[in-house]
Amino acid sequence: MAEFKGKTADILKNALARELYDGVQSLPIIDYHCHLSPKEIFEDKPFDDIGQMWLAADHYKWRLMRGFGIDEKYITGDADIKDKFRAFAKATGLALGNPMRDWVKSELGFFFGITEELNAQNADVIWQKANDVIAREKLSPRKLMKMSGVVYVATTDDPCDDLHWHRLIAEDKDLDVKVVPSFRTDKLVGADKPGYADYVRAIGAAAGMSVDTWDEFKAAVAARMDTFVEHGCKFSDVGVEGFPSAIADDKRAARIYAQLVSGQTPSAEDVDAYKGALYLALAKEYAARGMVMQMHLSVARNCDSQGFRELGADSGFDCVADPVPVESVRRMLDAMNDAHALPETVIYSLNPIAYYPLITLAGAFRGVHIGISWWFCDHKRGMTETLDALGELGHICSLVGMLTDSRSFLSYTRHDYYRQVVCNWLADHADGSTDAAKQVAYALCYGNAKALLEER
Amino acid sequence: MAEFKGKTADILKNALARELYDGVQSLPIIDYHCHLSPKEIFEDKPFDDIGQMWLAADHYKWRLMRGFGIDEKYITGDADIKDKFRAFAKATGLALGNPMRDWVKSELGFFFGITEELNAQNADVIWQKANDVIAREKLSPRKLMKMSGVVYVATTDDPCDDLHWHRLIAEDKDLDVKVVPSFRTDKLVGADKPGYADYVRAIGAAAGMSVDTWDEFKAAVAARMDTFVEHGCKFSDVGVEGFPSAIADDKRAARIYAQLVSGQTPSAEDVDAYKGALYLALAKEYAARGMVMQMHLSVARNCDSQGFRELGADSGFDCVADPVPVESVRRMLDAMNDAHALPETVIYSLNPIAYYPLITLAGAFRGVHIGISWWFCDHKRGMTETLDALGELGHICSLVGMLTDSRSFLSYTRHDYYRQVVCNWLADHADGSTDAAKQVAYALCYGNAKALLEER
Amino acid sequence: MAEFKGKTADILKNALARELYDGVQSLPIIDYHCHLSPKEIFEDKPFDDIGQMWLAADHYKWRLMRGFGIDEKYITGDADIKDKFRAFAKATGLALGNPMRDWVKSELGFFFGITEELNAQNADVIWQKANDVIAREKLSPRKLMKMSGVVYVATTDDPCDDLHWHRLIAEDKDLDVKVVPSFRTDKLVGADKPGYADYVRAIGAAAGMSVDTWDEFKAAVAARMDTFVEHGCKFSDVGVEGFPSAIADDKRAARIYAQLVSGQTPSAEDVDAYKGALYLALAKEYAARGMVMQMHLSVARNCDSQGFRELGADSGFDCVADPVPVESVRRMLDAMNDAHALPETVIYSLNPIAYYPLITLAGAFRGVHIGISWWFCDHKRGMTETLDALGELGHICSLVGMLTDSRSFLSYTRHDYYRQVVCNWLADHADGSTDAAKQVAYALCYGNAKALLEER
Repeated sequence: MAEFKGKTADILKNALARELYDGVQSLPIIDYHCHLSPKEIFEDKPFDDIGQMWLAADHYKWRLMRGFGIDEKYITGDADIKDKFRAFAKATGLALGNPMRDWVKSELGFFFGITEELNAQNADVIWQKANDVIAREKLSPRKLMKMSGVVYVATTDDPCDDLHWHRLIAEDKDLDVKVVPSFRTDKLVGADKPGYADYVRAIGAAAGMSVDTWDEFKAAVAARMDTFVEHGCKFSDVGVEGFPSAIADDKRAARIYAQLVSGQTPSAEDVDAYKGALYLALAKEYAARGMVMQMHLSVARNCDSQGFRELGADSGFDCVADPVPVESVRRMLDAMNDAHALPETVIYSLNPIAYYPLITLAGAFRGVHIGISWWFCDHKRGMTETLDALGELGHICSLVGMLTDSRSFLSYTRHDYYRQVVCNWLADHADGSTDAAKQVAYALCYGNAKALLEER
Repeated sequence: MAEFKGKTADILKNALARELYDGVQSLPIIDYHCHLSPKEIFEDKPFDDIGQMWLAADHYKWRLMRGFGIDEKYITGDADIKDKFRAFAKATGLALGNPMRDWVKSELGFFFGITEELNAQNADVIWQKANDVIAREKLSPRKLMKMSGVVYVATTDDPCDDLHWHRLIAEDKDLDVKVVPSFRTDKLVGADKPGYADYVRAIGAAAGMSVDTWDEFKAAVAARMDTFVEHGCKFSDVGVEGFPSAIADDKRAARIYAQLVSGQTPSAEDVDAYKGALYLALAKEYAARGMVMQMHLSVARNCDSQGFRELGADSGFDCVADPVPVESVRRMLDAMNDAHALPETVIYSLNPIAYYPLITLAGAFRGVHIGISWWFCDHKRGMTETLDALGELGHICSLVGMLTDSRSFLSYTRHDYYRQVVCNWLADHADGSTDAAKQVAYALCYGNAKALLEER
Repeated sequence: MAEFKGKTADILKNALARELYDGVQSLPIIDYHCHLSPKEIFEDKPFDDIGQMWLAADHYKWRLMRGFGIDEKYITGDADIKDKFRAFAKATGLALGNPMRDWVKSELGFFFGITEELNAQNADVIWQKANDVIAREKLSPRKLMKMSGVVYVATTDDPCDDLHWHRLIAEDKDLDVKVVPSFRTDKLVGADKPGYADYVRAIGAAAGMSVDTWDEFKAAVAARMDTFVEHGCKFSDVGVEGFPSAIADDKRAARIYAQLVSGQTPSAEDVDAYKGALYLALAKEYAARGMVMQMHLSVARNCDSQGFRELGADSGFDCVADPVPVESVRRMLDAMNDAHALPETVIYSLNPIAYYPLITLAGAFRGVHIGISWWFCDHKRGMTETLDALGELGHICSLVGMLTDSRSFLSYTRHDYYRQVVCNWLADHADGSTDAAKQVAYALCYGNAKALLEER
């Protein structure tokens, strides 16, 4: 990474892996998908302490603590932040095999120069050391991004978003990271959720256009997309439960749309086909603008109703869902392709058992990529599983690179971790072709992500 | 194990694994789920020979012999037991990669002091050596349990069972192993099976209560549960095909129950929802009594109808089923949790492709555990797969420990095998944290199972 | 292999693996399932160049090139064959982790004595070297088979096929490889495809029999099977999408058949059950003739409609499908078994997540085998996964051996590759039992396939 401060992970297995890593370690980071807050980036407030940095919003950490049996008081409750930190230290100290240990180690090493493994015994010492660094270095969002060598950040934004903070960022000459919005359509395709009619009207309001009909709605969405593109948007994303198994034609979609906005409840079959029509309509707009379409598949949201009622979304109650039927995904890609409107596409599956069907499916279409292991799968074994499957079934060079999907400015160390995993894997598969391995390492760690940003 | 006699498996990979194993090797065994016979434990008859010990009822061994092409005469047929033993020796001698070879090795080494690998050539010699030990040591159920360091055994019992043998065991001062019944509800939830109305009446008879209505039936089941708890029962279990996809409310369940007991056939949809209502009702009772709810998922029973007609259940014709939909399991756990009636729960999946969804689902609820690899998955690679997935997605310390699910008193060596696998895995993931690894080893090999037995 | 010319893969991991391999390396090759052309075998025309040999029809290679982003002009388009070869060299040179690299290496080494790794830099040199060998050695189909030690080839033939080329081959005294047809029923069971009525009439025409009724149709199919058996056929095969979930009885099948041949469109449910009836009827005929029934499961065909329209089937647009429901397969095997008409069977799954259910299911029936990793799964890790799962859940000796499923005479080197993978795996699992490992190696590399050919 560009301004290497300390040590991140150290998992390189042999001399070739180290040689490959030397070539990619300090390449810039292109973060084409994350959940960082543009407001926080703009305001750039220094952090208070390691507890707030780590535990205020990171539901990965909350899950780990719950899995260890920590009382909720010390997770999302009203306990003192230092006590929460101690509880986390205890849980992570014994979480052998959990990637959290690697991430904690990387972040402590890289940003704070702390090389001990966090545990119950040294929690207070590390609390103090880390907070001293935060105070001394005035660690803030931009500072952390700069230390990490980040050059490009695509945040995740609702099509209704006014992009206020993105505009302020664009006007800020002090920030040399390119920060742009992404077009996240979870609510847009959420026709089975309460409040969909209101959401549709909000799109109309944001676009300043009428949304009385399906055609008008599509035009308003396209107008929002234009606004996003004017602000540098290159990526779209969707990460909802399920996947449309049918695609309504425009006439049927118009009829279902009319029902939806008038407060009627279409049949489940109709809602499914309406969603399919939306996916297809969106793809046409993405393709027309050279945008990249990302699809995050097979997530089950808010599985614990009681927890969701008490703490809301993104609180650690999401799960890996059974895989979406590959035939549904095939039908969708095929419809887009047949309409000459298949955008550059990246598909992520939260359930690894779908890798084999999805990778072979992606190989049947031009410009469809499988993304690197995501979320629950984002660990050494999980990444290696993706590299193995993609290498065997597709072409390893079709991987577009690392994504963080992160809500934390600290987690850029995971790019470094990914680079080490990639270099290990390439060293295992080089079989004498060192030059080839170097080319592939560059592509996977930087080149392919950079190419994604270019005009199409 | 407490009274180590010989060698079991020797699969420890390095010095740290050996150090960890030294700390857990002789911990007592808590067998919280098995199919041992309380009658055999009470009667404690010495065994005749190694053939009877191994081949009289072990359908794992029968399957292996069939897979090698051994004639049924030498499996369940009328061949001489020594010839059956020879046939088994031949089949297992060539079964490279099968855990049976590890188990045979462990059992021969530990109980008999025999260190050769069993095969066609040495079958007669081993037959003689083993039988000499059986005769000399008067090997019997209790003797084997004592040699193995077993302190607690939860058998598997039908709610109609009169617990006759358990009462005799409880009164027997000579036995220093705690042997208690478990509440196994396969027949209770088998509303789609022939004879369900008869079964329901048997519950009523066992409880001495009327079961004319759904409410009366639930009360009778609760009464049986009380009786079981009076005899020390802490665990329930269910291991049937499928999983309810819906949960009938009490009114609907009452209507379906009335149909079932009057000999009518409700719709498949109704039976499914009735089962769901039963699962939920049972959970409430378990939670009220501090019992542990075990669910064994994704088994296909008696797949070969002809074999089943000739040999009955548990004859080697069960298979790994496609995974149950995780959404069904989610709905059930959520309903229990919403009713404040989610007991301490252990979920086992016979199909390992469900580990990712199930482990993340378990992590969304308090007190829901994933069990160690079960049955067909109970081997070195299978256990490691569970440890990997649980370590990555949950917290390794949430594992409650080894279960045998066994019908054989010899198979306690598999606890030792499990401990070696666990210590290897921890050594691979300790990354310098030796003390943490020791704590986790203790928890996974003994501490967590012990905690399960305590009052809640 | 019998006439070892050069080096194939060199992946043996240790001394025992090498010792095992020494014992099986030069065993003959029995290719009981491939897509080689009997016409090409009979005509035995020498090849023009390495480009034609590799790139004229191999959709595995086309996929790899597409995955790397090569323009279609250089894949199936009108580019010069040498330029296509250069493009392939570039794509494969960077395809780390893809089995294509192993196969290219094996084929270059074994048939051409070329030991460099093919890549963009050396493409022209290797082009020349390989073409020199082709010209000098007059490499032709028969020459390649002879070099590879092939003794038996079962091609893949439609039941309507007149077996013209097979008859000519049988009369050709110069060929010492046994080449026989296989009975491939994809079109026969394709009752949901356009043109099915025409296909049915073609069967009647080929058999010279009336096919007005279901019974007549079955008789005509049986007559075609007799003709195939007269030409040495021992194997059947089917490799279509989906799997019947129901089995129509004869009365229902007759009614559906009447609809199908009269141009009506039965319900999807009826077509499914009709297919089931066909599977069962075919199995009875296979069993009566001692034929082996092969089923290739979980493929999705022609996923890219546009690509299929332009290039037709077998052009690189097939994918791994979601697994077929194991309950459907169970129902079918059980029906066959109950009718005392379960043939010797080999089941292949293109989706590896079905291995656990299918292997345990196979173990519940006599004479049902799981085939080695097929197509997308046919690589080192994929084969090892099958060996692991089969070893753990079944008996490793039930594996019938390697199949190529190949369209290329060069790909017999994959038998050698398989043998090395098998020997590595056995070395890992021998645990001191060297003699057992040798026996198993022989069975898996030759003995079991040979036994398949024998009379039953």
